[in-house]
Amino acid sequence: MAGYNTLSKEQLNEELVKLKEEYAKILESDISLDMSRGKPGEDQLNLSMGMMNVLDGNSDYKTTVGFDCRNYGLLDGIPEAKQMMADIMEVSPENVIVFGNASLNIMYDTVSRSFTHGVLGETPWCKLDKVKWLCPVPGYDRHFSITEFFGVEMINVPMNEDGPDMDMVEKLVSEDEAIKGIWCVPKYANPTGVAYSDEVVRRFAALKPAAKDFRIFWDNAYAIHHLYEDESKQEKILNILEECEKAGNPDMVYEFASTSKVSFPGSGVAAMATSKANIAFIKKQMGIQTIGYDKINQLRHVKFFKDFDGVKAHMMKHAALLRPKFDAVLSMLDKELKDAEIAAWTKPQGGYFISLDVMEGCAKKVVSMCKDAGMILTGAGATYPYGKDPKDSNIRIAPSYATPEDLVKASKILIVCTKIATIEKMLEA
Amino acid sequence: MAGYNTLSKEQLNEELVKLKEEYAKILESDISLDMSRGKPGEDQLNLSMGMMNVLDGNSDYKTTVGFDCRNYGLLDGIPEAKQMMADIMEVSPENVIVFGNASLNIMYDTVSRSFTHGVLGETPWCKLDKVKWLCPVPGYDRHFSITEFFGVEMINVPMNEDGPDMDMVEKLVSEDEAIKGIWCVPKYANPTGVAYSDEVVRRFAALKPAAKDFRIFWDNAYAIHHLYEDESKQEKILNILEECEKAGNPDMVYEFASTSKVSFPGSGVAAMATSKANIAFIKKQMGIQTIGYDKINQLRHVKFFKDFDGVKAHMMKHAALLRPKFDAVLSMLDKELKDAEIAAWTKPQGGYFISLDVMEGCAKKVVSMCKDAGMILTGAGATYPYGKDPKDSNIRIAPSYATPEDLVKASKILIVCTKIATIEKMLEA
Repeated sequence: MAGYNTLSKEQLNEELVKLKEEYAKILESDISLDMSRGKPGEDQLNLSMGMMNVLDGNSDYKTTVGFDCRNYGLLDGIPEAKQMMADIMEVSPENVIVFGNASLNIMYDTVSRSFTHGVLGETPWCKLDKVKWLCPVPGYDRHFSITEFFGVEMINVPMNEDGPDMDMVEKLVSEDEAIKGIWCVPKYANPTGVAYSDEVVRRFAALKPAAKDFRIFWDNAYAIHHLYEDESKQEKILNILEECEKAGNPDMVYEFASTSKVSFPGSGVAAMATSKANIAFIKKQMGIQTIGYDKINQLRHVKFFKDFDGVKAHMMKHAALLRPKFDAVLSMLDKELKDAEIAAWTKPQGGYFISLDVMEGCAKKVVSMCKDAGMILTGAGATYPYGKDPKDSNIRIAPSYATPEDLVKASKILIVCTKIATIEKMLEA
Repeated sequence: MAGYNTLSKEQLNEELVKLKEEYAKILESDISLDMSRGKPGEDQLNLSMGMMNVLDGNSDYKTTVGFDCRNYGLLDGIPEAKQMMADIMEVSPENVIVFGNASLNIMYDTVSRSFTHGVLGETPWCKLDKVKWLCPVPGYDRHFSITEFFGVEMINVPMNEDGPDMDMVEKLVSEDEAIKGIWCVPKYANPTGVAYSDEVVRRFAALKPAAKDFRIFWDNAYAIHHLYEDESKQEKILNILEECEKAGNPDMVYEFASTSKVSFPGSGVAAMATSKANIAFIKKQMGIQTIGYDKINQLRHVKFFKDFDGVKAHMMKHAALLRPKFDAVLSMLDKELKDAEIAAWTKPQGGYFISLDVMEGCAKKVVSMCKDAGMILTGAGATYPYGKDPKDSNIRIAPSYATPEDLVKASKILIVCTKIATIEKMLEA
């Protein structure tokens, strides 16, 4: 099969008839697949079941500093959990606060606190006429939902292969005092899988924002979520805290991470890393908001993983389960979609997503056709602020939850739908 | 010993000399006691150790609806945890959202959301010139800290023996649209131990606030925290949700509860109960803030307690440990402070505190003298907004964390300090 753009109208019509027959068969079959969220598979959850054995009714619940994890106290986390989360983010424990079960919650609370109480003494954002935010696109829908919820005006910034378009970031941030933040997933970005290059990280660290209270929200959600054991295939990114400090912007970044996709989604441990000035400011608010987070669960994590080598070894077990899932989708796309030359997709070395770009104006239709066939994808547009993909072309594929066998079926459906939507669009023109 | 007010100056001076000798001896002894917070004792924590055995690496982590607690989802809690928290608050599970590990966090987030996004469609509080709040006093310092943190103007409302002064509450709430809330601990109030009478609850439910977005923050922290097995000694309060609905104010109340002092402080389960309209509104925001709370911990609680009877039986074990601690303090106060007629204190049937009122202008001095003697009490004034007890007379005693033996020593110190401060005050006059 040649590229669709080399085909005549008649050939396209012939192809369309065949594809529609295939789609009709798919509709008849009883398929129910969910590829909408980056949700670990049950096999991945089973990897951490040992964690449920490390503490029992006879265990010692004391931290290394002799503190009883079963009682109130230790607002910012037990020392050994701070160390674990610091290792994951490659920072020092003094720069870490351990929170509850979800980094998304920390990000929301950080935005919310900035609205109600400002950032390090600056005017609370709720007192400003306008707050703007930079959003590298395609990006993570739940990031955009937070800023949308707070009425923030979001500005799309294109993603390049080594990170966001830094020319644009630098220009906007230095010119517009209303721009208070940027959402970043610096490693194995959601959904593109991109890792920010050293140059991009350095340019971030060297930003000269018009707003003193501009902050980089560095969601290092996939810091250790490699798909390959081979270290040459593992992305490495520069340490943003260090680079910001070197560049004289020590307070400009909040880094986030969690064990949601290391241990259990919803029952993991989440943390923030930032400068000591930011930590002191945030802890004042935390001390009003809570008496502390679940330290027993922190202890459970540390006892199970033991140390950072334990965490890394555990992540390789995840990789072994995830690789065949990514391979299943990618090899189908290679085999059955490549030649048509109507779409492009990423081949990530880590993270939870494959980003598929179909012909402009086709993504919504593809997602909708897949849905009719019993297959739920992330909503088209979800990877853009306000759910609006200006080109209507990006589709996020989340292969983690299904089995490789189901993913072959799912890819088939996706491919058929993509081809139909594309040909119909071409024939319209 | 007769009442101090019957003594002559000389007699008071003589008494003071003796007391100062006693205090000097106390200062020489090596005492270190902390009665500052309502922190369960280690013996109480041990009661729940069986909870650490109910789930292990081979357990079934499915909820009654077949949902895997180990993965993302179920934003508002697993059904069986909703039922458990509903039982504790005596409401229906449809009125319950289960959150994370601390009800304080829910209260903070509720205030914060009202500031950023308003209440059921009303103007966000951050857009108002002034937000005011009613604070029954003495009350819970962490409540007052939240409203203080948000710049809310707090108005003291005296506590009577059956709850807040409702004449004052009704008048203020109906006249002033800036009053948006009131902090209540309706059963075994912190620190007075008072239970709101049926009349008080009904008057709350029938309030006619000037502000549509006025809310009662009903912190039912000690709903099941009785000190006595004898049911006639267990306080019962009317169901505020029901009463509000009957009175045509279904959305006016948020009720809060947690298992912090049932299972483990910091590793428990917290919940809110409120109207369906409020729940729908709150869930929209929750869905932006988080993907869900720790469902494994919810499951652990339910598996351990089994049902509400299990929870109640467990609370009687707490009562058995706490009673001797309250008795130790109360019998010392009766024995060594009563005759002097210089102080009054509560004899609660539940909760975590004894409230001691010393002579006006003496509380700070007593707390400070106790501190010098190695005994930490809650800061004088902490039970009032802004930390300012206008009479400087209330002291909160938290007997849960120390042993009964230490509590006898602690009470002795407290009594000596109270007497010294009082006599010095009397002699000043």
